[in-house]
Amino acid sequence: MSKGKVVLAYSGGLDTSVCIKYLQEEYDYEVIALGLEIGEGKDLESLKEKALEVGAEKAVIIDAKELLAKEYLMPALKANCLYEGKYPLSSALSRPLISKLLVEVAEQEGAVAVAHGCTGKGNDQVRFEVSIQALNPDLEVIAPVREWGMNREDEIAYAKEKNIPIQVNLEKPYSIDANIWGRACEAGVLEDTWKEAPEEAFDWTASIADTPDEPEYVEIAFTEGEPTSLNGVPMQLADLILELNKIGGKHGVGRIDHIENRLVGIKAREVYENPGALILINAHKELEFLTLPKEITQFKTTIDQKMTQLIYDGLWYSPLRTALDAFVNDTQKVVSGKIQVKLWKGTQMVVARHSDNSLYNEELATYSKGDAFDHNAAMGFIKLWGLTTKTYSQIHQKKKAETTGKK
Amino acid sequence: MSKGKVVLAYSGGLDTSVCIKYLQEEYDYEVIALGLEIGEGKDLESLKEKALEVGAEKAVIIDAKELLAKEYLMPALKANCLYEGKYPLSSALSRPLISKLLVEVAEQEGAVAVAHGCTGKGNDQVRFEVSIQALNPDLEVIAPVREWGMNREDEIAYAKEKNIPIQVNLEKPYSIDANIWGRACEAGVLEDTWKEAPEEAFDWTASIADTPDEPEYVEIAFTEGEPTSLNGVPMQLADLILELNKIGGKHGVGRIDHIENRLVGIKAREVYENPGALILINAHKELEFLTLPKEITQFKTTIDQKMTQLIYDGLWYSPLRTALDAFVNDTQKVVSGKIQVKLWKGTQMVVARHSDNSLYNEELATYSKGDAFDHNAAMGFIKLWGLTTKTYSQIHQKKKAETTGKK
Amino acid sequence: MSKGKVVLAYSGGLDTSVCIKYLQEEYDYEVIALGLEIGEGKDLESLKEKALEVGAEKAVIIDAKELLAKEYLMPALKANCLYEGKYPLSSALSRPLISKLLVEVAEQEGAVAVAHGCTGKGNDQVRFEVSIQALNPDLEVIAPVREWGMNREDEIAYAKEKNIPIQVNLEKPYSIDANIWGRACEAGVLEDTWKEAPEEAFDWTASIADTPDEPEYVEIAFTEGEPTSLNGVPMQLADLILELNKIGGKHGVGRIDHIENRLVGIKAREVYENPGALILINAHKELEFLTLPKEITQFKTTIDQKMTQLIYDGLWYSPLRTALDAFVNDTQKVVSGKIQVKLWKGTQMVVARHSDNSLYNEELATYSKGDAFDHNAAMGFIKLWGLTTKTYSQIHQKKKAETTGKK
Amino acid sequence: MSKGKVVLAYSGGLDTSVCIKYLQEEYDYEVIALGLEIGEGKDLESLKEKALEVGAEKAVIIDAKELLAKEYLMPALKANCLYEGKYPLSSALSRPLISKLLVEVAEQEGAVAVAHGCTGKGNDQVRFEVSIQALNPDLEVIAPVREWGMNREDEIAYAKEKNIPIQVNLEKPYSIDANIWGRACEAGVLEDTWKEAPEEAFDWTASIADTPDEPEYVEIAFTEGEPTSLNGVPMQLADLILELNKIGGKHGVGRIDHIENRLVGIKAREVYENPGALILINAHKELEFLTLPKEITQFKTTIDQKMTQLIYDGLWYSPLRTALDAFVNDTQKVVSGKIQVKLWKGTQMVVARHSDNSLYNEELATYSKGDAFDHNAAMGFIKLWGLTTKTYSQIHQKKKAETTGKK
Repeated sequence: MSKGKVVLAYSGGLDTSVCIKYLQEEYDYEVIALGLEIGEGKDLESLKEKALEVGAEKAVIIDAKELLAKEYLMPALKANCLYEGKYPLSSALSRPLISKLLVEVAEQEGAVAVAHGCTGKGNDQVRFEVSIQALNPDLEVIAPVREWGMNREDEIAYAKEKNIPIQVNLEKPYSIDANIWGRACEAGVLEDTWKEAPEEAFDWTASIADTPDEPEYVEIAFTEGEPTSLNGVPMQLADLILELNKIGGKHGVGRIDHIENRLVGIKAREVYENPGALILINAHKELEFLTLPKEITQFKTTIDQKMTQLIYDGLWYSPLRTALDAFVNDTQKVVSGKIQVKLWKGTQMVVARHSDNSLYNEELATYSKGDAFDHNAAMGFIKLWGLTTKTYSQIHQKKKAETTGKK
Repeated sequence: MSKGKVVLAYSGGLDTSVCIKYLQEEYDYEVIALGLEIGEGKDLESLKEKALEVGAEKAVIIDAKELLAKEYLMPALKANCLYEGKYPLSSALSRPLISKLLVEVAEQEGAVAVAHGCTGKGNDQVRFEVSIQALNPDLEVIAPVREWGMNREDEIAYAKEKNIPIQVNLEKPYSIDANIWGRACEAGVLEDTWKEAPEEAFDWTASIADTPDEPEYVEIAFTEGEPTSLNGVPMQLADLILELNKIGGKHGVGRIDHIENRLVGIKAREVYENPGALILINAHKELEFLTLPKEITQFKTTIDQKMTQLIYDGLWYSPLRTALDAFVNDTQKVVSGKIQVKLWKGTQMVVARHSDNSLYNEELATYSKGDAFDHNAAMGFIKLWGLTTKTYSQIHQKKKAETTGKK
Repeated sequence: MSKGKVVLAYSGGLDTSVCIKYLQEEYDYEVIALGLEIGEGKDLESLKEKALEVGAEKAVIIDAKELLAKEYLMPALKANCLYEGKYPLSSALSRPLISKLLVEVAEQEGAVAVAHGCTGKGNDQVRFEVSIQALNPDLEVIAPVREWGMNREDEIAYAKEKNIPIQVNLEKPYSIDANIWGRACEAGVLEDTWKEAPEEAFDWTASIADTPDEPEYVEIAFTEGEPTSLNGVPMQLADLILELNKIGGKHGVGRIDHIENRLVGIKAREVYENPGALILINAHKELEFLTLPKEITQFKTTIDQKMTQLIYDGLWYSPLRTALDAFVNDTQKVVSGKIQVKLWKGTQMVVARHSDNSLYNEELATYSKGDAFDHNAAMGFIKLWGLTTKTYSQIHQKKKAETTGKK
Repeated sequence: MSKGKVVLAYSGGLDTSVCIKYLQEEYDYEVIALGLEIGEGKDLESLKEKALEVGAEKAVIIDAKELLAKEYLMPALKANCLYEGKYPLSSALSRPLISKLLVEVAEQEGAVAVAHGCTGKGNDQVRFEVSIQALNPDLEVIAPVREWGMNREDEIAYAKEKNIPIQVNLEKPYSIDANIWGRACEAGVLEDTWKEAPEEAFDWTASIADTPDEPEYVEIAFTEGEPTSLNGVPMQLADLILELNKIGGKHGVGRIDHIENRLVGIKAREVYENPGALILINAHKELEFLTLPKEITQFKTTIDQKMTQLIYDGLWYSPLRTALDAFVNDTQKVVSGKIQVKLWKGTQMVVARHSDNSLYNEELATYSKGDAFDHNAAMGFIKLWGLTTKTYSQIHQKKKAETTGKK
C-alpha cells in the first residue's frame, strides 16, 4: 500500500532515474517527478517522457531559468560570490531554487515527502535538506541514493536489472551538473590531483588552441548592480547570461580547476566552466571599484565572503542571508554604468569603465596641470597616521637603550 | 652654510634628479644619493655616475634584489597579498626596504635627514615616512617635490633651467615604478577610465598577439611556503622571480588594469605587470588548498587581507605585522610540494599539484569502489547543521499562522 | 568689514565662549551661536542669554533630545555599540547631530561658515568636520581653538582679558561633555593612569557606599530593537533614557574607566558615566540572544564592531553606515520582547527575559522527560565536524611515523 | 568475554558512575576510571575509592590543576576568551585537557577505547570526541549515556537498580560542572528563561546582600600576558586563580546568567560563576589597552573571537589554534605590568594600571602646559580622512541637483 506521494527532483540522469524505481519499490511511494530546465539545454518534453518511461506516476516540468537568474543568481552576483576565491557557486545556487519548487509542488499535489538523488558525501544533500526544512518543516525528505549506500557501479547494475534506460559510459564516468551559471565536472580521472584535466572534461569552453585569433569586446550595462544590456541590447537576465556563456566559451574563457573544501569535511577536485558568471562578476566588481567609496569596497568583501560561505553551506534560507542581502542591496544603489570586457584566447580583461556615479575624480587624480589635490594635507595626515607606530618605536627603543646602557 | 648631510633615495628619474639640486640649493644640504638595483635592470655604475653628474656629493649604490625577495616579498607571498584582490603590492613592498637602507646609510654617514621624491598625493610618501619614523624617530624626513608643490611640467622646466640631464618624453608622460615583483604605470592617457590602456603602457609582457602558439608548463617547488626551485632547478629567490617574469612575460601573463583606492582617499587608474608575482601567488594558493585544513584556509583570508592592507597603507614596521607574520609562518610549516602551471596566450592555470602533506584523500573523495566516507554520518550532520534555521522557521511560521488565524 | 555669518556650536563652556569673541575679533565674522539641549540639563533661556552676553549677534536654541535619541542613539543601540568593548559612544553620537543642525541653521541663516570649539588632539574635531563636509561641502569649517593653539590655561587668560564670564575652577580642571547617552570626564588628575579616579570625577552615579541596600528591578520592553516602555509604562525615547539614567545612577550603575585609543593616534584616560546606555545595551543584547539565530548573533558582532568604529571615527555620514544600518535593521524585525534587569550596588544583571519570538525551545533544551532533541544525530554531526582535524592528524602522524621509522 | 580495556573520564557524579556499570555489563569492557582534580575540590583518595566501589577495575587519579592552568587557561586568558562576550569557557577548556589525559592513560594501559559520560545534546561530547580523534585516531570513543539515550530520571533509576551509590537530590536537579576557571550550573528551574536564577544555583559567590561593606583592592602583576603575582606575592598559576576565586567570590563577583547558543544548534540557559577568570580577563584586557598599539588592540579582537569560537566548538587540537596562538603570543611580549582591581559589592573595576611598556604618553595626552601634540597636523589628517566621504557627497549632491534641475 502506498505511503502517499513523494515529489522527486528529477534530472533525467542515472541517480534520479534509479531513485524513481527505488522510491516505488523500496519505499512504496507514488512518485511525482519534478523536471526543471535551468540551463542544461534540456528538452522539457523529452524529460517528461523519460520520467514517465522510467515509471513516474506524474511528471511536472518547469522552465525556471529566468526565476533562477532573478531570485538566486543576482543576489550572488551583487555579492561577487566566488567560493574560495574561485568557484561562482553555480550548483550551490540552484539547490535552494529546486528546493523551493519541490516544496511548492509537494504542497500543490498533497505530497507527504520530497526526495533528491544526492549521495552522502557531497554538499548538495545539505543544501536540499536544510532548505526544505526551512521552507516546510513538516515535509519528510528522502535521499534514496544515500540511504541505500549505492556507489556509481551499484547504480548502473541496479538500472540494468530494473530496465531503466540510461546513458552512462563507464569509460568516461564524470559526474556533471549544469545550469545557466555554470557547469561542474568531477570524479573519474580528475581524482588524481597530479594529472591535468583532460579536454574531454570540458564542454562549454573551447580549448585555447581552437579560439579565434582576434579579440572580441563586449559591453555590459548594469543598473543598480544587475546587468541590463549586452552590447547595447537590453536583454532578459537568463538570455544575457546564456549569450555570455556562448561568447565567452567561444574564446575559451571560464575554466576553473579547483581543490575544494567541501562542507562535509573532505577536499574534492572540481572542474568548472563558468564563462558568463566569471565575466559578469569581473565586470560587476570593476563597476564597484569605480562607484563605491573605499570604506564600502573594503568592508563589503567581508559581507561578500560571508554570503558566499552561507550559500555554499546550504544556508540560503537562513535569516542571516536576508540581512546580508539588505546590506548588499543598499550598496548597489549607485552601481550603475557600463563596462567593456575584452575576450581573447582564454583571457578576459576589463579595459574600460564608465558611470555617472563614478567616484574617480580626474581633477584629484591627475599628475598634470589642473591638479586639485591638497598636497600639504598629506603632511599632517602622515604624522597622525604613523603616530601609534612611532610612539611604539620610541618607547621600545628607549627601553632597549636603557637596558643596553645598564649592562 | 650646510645644514649637514641628507641621504636621498635616488632612482635616476626626473623627480629625484630634481631633488638633488633642490636639496642643495633650497635647503643647503650636502646630498648623498642612495641608488638601489631592485629589479629595474639598472646598471649600478651608470646610476652612480648619473647621481654625481647631477651634483650629489656622494653616491652609495647597492644591489638589493635578494634582500627584497627574502625579507619583503616572501612574507607577502605567504600571505597571498593582492590589494583589492588584484595588485600584488609590488611598489608597496619596496618602500620599507628602501626606508631601511636609507636609515642605515644615514646612520653610517652621520646624516641628519633623509629625503624621497614623492608627491603629496600618492601612497609612497606615507610608506616612506611612517617606515623611517618607526626605524629612527630622530631623523628628519624631507619630501622636496611635495613641499615645493611642483607638478610634472614644473619639474621638467626646473630640470632644464638647472641643466639637469633627464630623459622625459612629454608625449608619453607615464609615471613608472618597477622592481622584481612588478612594474607600475600610471598617469597620461590612463587617466581616462573609459579608454583601453594602449600597448605602449606595457613593457614586460607581450601582447597576446605576439605570444607563442604552444603552451609552456613550469613546475614550481615550494618549501614551507617559499619557492625553492623552478622546473627542478634550485634557484635563489630573486633569480627565480626574474626567470618567471621572463617566461610569464613571453606568454603575455601578468597584466593588471585597476581603479585603485589609494590610502590618501582618491581613486587612481593603475596599470601593472606582475608576471612572476601573479604566477607565484597563484601556485602558492593552490598548494595551500591542497595542504591546509579548511578551517585555516578560510580564516587565513582574513589574516591575508589584513596583512595586505597594512603593507599597502605603509605600516610594514607596525608591530601588528610581526604578529600577523607569526600566524602566517605557523601555517606555512606544511605548505611544501610542487605545482605545475600552464602558461598560454595570456592565461596561467594550475593544472597539477602534489604534496607529501596533501590533505586530499582519494579514499574519502572518490565516487568509485573504495569509498571510505561514512554516508550515514551525513544525516546526523544535516539535522544539527540546519537546526537553528529550522527552529527559526518553525517559530515564525507558527506565529504567522496564529496571526493569520486571528484575523 | 565682516566676512559674513558663521554658525558656532555653542555649549556655554569655556572653549566656545572664547570662540565667540575670537571669531569676531580675529576672523571678522558675525557670530550666530547654536545652543542645544541634548541632556546636560541646560536651561535653554539662560544658555541663550549667556551667548548674547558673551557677544553673539544671534543665538538659536533647540531642544534636540528626542531627535538625538531617535535618529542617532537608536541605530547605535541596535548595533550594541561599545567602543573597545566599553564606551557607548555617548559624545561620538552627538557630533553628527550637532553637525547636521549646524549645517541646517547655516543654510537657513545664509552663513558662509560653521565653527566648533575643539582642540587639535581629540576625536571630535574629526567628527565635526567630516560630518559637515559630507552634509554641505561648500561650507567653510573653522576651529578657532585649534588654530590659535591655546591650551586650557591660555583660554582662561584670554577669557579674563576679554571679560568673558566663565565658571572655571583651576583646582578641578576636568573637561566634561554630556548628553542623555552619557557623561565624559577627562584631564586633570585622571592623566595619571596609576591613580584611581576620585569621586569628584563622577556626577551622575552614586558611590556604591551611598546606594540603597535593596535591589531594584526594572522591566524594559522592546519593539523591533527599540525600547518602548519602562516598567510597563510606554515612554518617549529620551524620557525613557533619562529615567534609566536616574534609576541606574541611584544604584551606582554605569561607571567606566578607560584607556582609550583615539582616532588621532594617542591614548587617553577617560572616565564615563552611562547608566541608561549601559542598561539598555545590556538588555538589548540579551533580547538578541533570545530571539536571533546563532548565525546572526555571531556574525552581527562583526557588523556591530564596524558600526562602532565608523561612528567613533567620525564617519557617521559615510554611505557605509547606511549599508550597515540596513543589515542591522533587517535583523531587528524579531527583536521584540521584555527584559528584567536587577540593579544593585553598582551591578546590573539581566535576570529574566521573554519574547514571542524566543528561539529558546524548552523541549529541545530540557534535560528532563519531554526531551525532543535527537541524540543520535550528534554522532554523525561529530564525525563530519571533526573530519578535517582528524584527516590532518592522520596524515601528519603517519608522516611523522615514517620519518621516525627511517632514522 | 571482555573486549579489552576502556578508560573512562570519571567525575564521581551520576552520569559517569552509571557509565562504569554500563560499560561493563552492556559493552563487556574492563573499565579504568580516570579521576582528575581540576579545581572542584575533590579529594583524590575518596574519588579513587568511589570509582572502585562502583566497580571499576582500576582507578587512575591525577591532580591536573596546574597543567590545566598553564597549558589551557593561559592561552585563553591571553586571547581574552569570552564566548558570546560573556562566558570564559571554563568547562570548554577542561575538555581538551581531559581528552589528552584519557589518550595518554589509554596508551599507557593498552586500552582499546576511551569513554565519557556526555549526553547527545551538549557541546562536551563534541569537544571530547574531536579532541580524542585528533590525538589518537585509532582509539574507539564510547558515549554510553548518549547511546543508551537515558535522561536524568532514567539514570537515577538505573543507579538504584544496580546499587550504585549516588547523591542526587531530585528536588534540586541541577547539572553542575566545575574547575578552577569556573562553575557551570544548568537545568531544573533555570530552564524557564523568565524566572530569575535562585540563590541555590550559586555556590562560589556570595549574594551581594552578604558581601563586605568595604571594597577590597587586589594588585595583579603580569609578565608577557600571564599573571605572576597577587598583591606582590609570586604564586603558581593554579593557586593564584584559586585565591582570586575566593576573594572575588567573597565580594559577590563573577556571576553570569546566559542564554547560550550551543554548537549543536540549540539555545540553553546557563548560570556560571567565574570570579577568578573574570577578574583576570578584565585585568589582562586593561593591561593590553595600556601596552598594545591601536592597530593590534583592534585587530586582536578578531583573533580573540576566532580563538574563543574554536575552543567552544571543540577544535582545540585544530592546527588553526596553534596559528592563532602564534599571533597572540607575539602580541603578548609587551603585556607586562601591574593592574589594580577594586572588588566591591559584586562589582570589579580596574582603577589603576602601570607598565614599563605603557604607550600612554602623558606629554601627548595632556591638556595642560607641556602638550607635545602637533595640533596643526590634525587639519591635514581630517582633510584626507574625510576625502572619500566628501567626494561621494559631492558627486551625488551634484547628480541630485542636475536631476532636480531637469524636472
